[in-house]
Amino acid sequence: MPKPGQPLPIFGFFRRLIGRDRAFRQAITTITGTAPSNVQLYRLAFTHSSLVRQQGEQARHQSNERLEFLGDAVLGTAVAEYLFRKFPYEQEGFLTEMRSRIVNRESLNSIALKIGLDKLVQLDAAQGRAARSRSVNGNALEALVGAVYLDHGYKTARKFVLARLLKPFVDVKAMTETTTNFKSKLIEWAQRNGKNMRYELTGEARPGGVMEFSAVVVVDDEPIATGMGLSKKQAEQLAAERALTVLGM
Amino acid sequence: MPKPGQPLPIFGFFRRLIGRDRAFRQAITTITGTAPSNVQLYRLAFTHSSLVRQQGEQARHQSNERLEFLGDAVLGTAVAEYLFRKFPYEQEGFLTEMRSRIVNRESLNSIALKIGLDKLVQLDAAQGRAARSRSVNGNALEALVGAVYLDHGYKTARKFVLARLLKPFVDVKAMTETTTNFKSKLIEWAQRNGKNMRYELTGEARPGGVMEFSAVVVVDDEPIATGMGLSKKQAEQLAAERALTVLGM
Repeated sequence: MPKPGQPLPIFGFFRRLIGRDRAFRQAITTITGTAPSNVQLYRLAFTHSSLVRQQGEQARHQSNERLEFLGDAVLGTAVAEYLFRKFPYEQEGFLTEMRSRIVNRESLNSIALKIGLDKLVQLDAAQGRAARSRSVNGNALEALVGAVYLDHGYKTARKFVLARLLKPFVDVKAMTETTTNFKSKLIEWAQRNGKNMRYELTGEARPGGVMEFSAVVVVDDEPIATGMGLSKKQAEQLAAERALTVLGM
Repeated sequence: MPKPGQPLPIFGFFRRLIGRDRAFRQAITTITGTAPSNVQLYRLAFTHSSLVRQQGEQARHQSNERLEFLGDAVLGTAVAEYLFRKFPYEQEGFLTEMRSRIVNRESLNSIALKIGLDKLVQLDAAQGRAARSRSVNGNALEALVGAVYLDHGYKTARKFVLARLLKPFVDVKAMTETTTNFKSKLIEWAQRNGKNMRYELTGEARPGGVMEFSAVVVVDDEPIATGMGLSKKQAEQLAAERALTVLGM
């Protein structure tokens, strides 16, 4: 029994619970720049599937995987628009490549650690180490973007992505300089040498619902190199790289 | 010389020009549900790269390819949210598969034809037939979504996608029924038979910046089937399909 004047343990329990909730809300506000309205969404964003998988495969919709699916799309759109406006004279291939470098697994994991998401992610201790080694934090970051989108709408989610993730942590300029654009190089070569060049593209469906593309670089009506890839751009980029080799560059 | 009382030909020229512009604005309003503010964006959305390619590869940023990149992301986000809300108990794999069935090349081409985009797309007559045979109209539809997004913001673009493209032209319910979800079937089997099952996933980087995933279905701590794929979900889906075969289902 507590001594007189000391609070009943039950109150301590509630106080700790409320304190924890307040700390969580504060953390979300600090990270996203906006106070959460529906705090459950953010709890979900930090629930790794290992935590609910003990309840069986069918409980997976109670993990952050669905929010990750949504957040991935929102993040991709925000970054796409950012790049679209920032590089008005660059082609689609450049924008696609830049985006995939910004939102790739490794980059997202690294940003997630920098904003301290690893301290918020809830996972099963037994599976913890194995899970950590994969992309738990990057996935939680995508899920967090999804949570902000559902809680406050696209504009707020976009602002979170650009102001709190992209601008502080991604050196877009340096990335531009190291983005090896074989296609641009090939175009420059063609212009310098007065050559007419184009790509011929074909696509083929592969087992598993994947499209495989094949691009042929044609210079003055002569095919000089071929590239394959899982997107038009990838195929063209590879074909351009090989064409440059063929041309001795 | 025109007879007295007949308008000078020059006025006829302007009238036709203005009439054409008015007709174009009207077409956009009918298709998207919102009158265009910046009509140039929509002109760009319907400019196929074949039309500017005569001016060389470097003119490609004046085609609809950049808008297609942006619109693809916006479309993906709108459909992702729609599915997320419509199927609250489905897992990420289901949502991903449904979305790829809704926004795939073939589906977009078919919707684009139904709303008459083929009459608006501008392409080089010489390359016309070859270009038409590919996904010119579906790509223009993505570019149109990008144009609406830049012109009126995300909310309007989302409304266009859901009210004017998805709901009238995509039978989501029928699609759900034909979506062969091997993973769900496997879960049901495990539940019926009191088995404990999980997936073990590994990913590996492949040349060309592609990740290849491998999923192992483990039933009561015994691996029974493996699947490979370019996404976690694809690998799991294939592994589940094979597991069902192994289990004689």
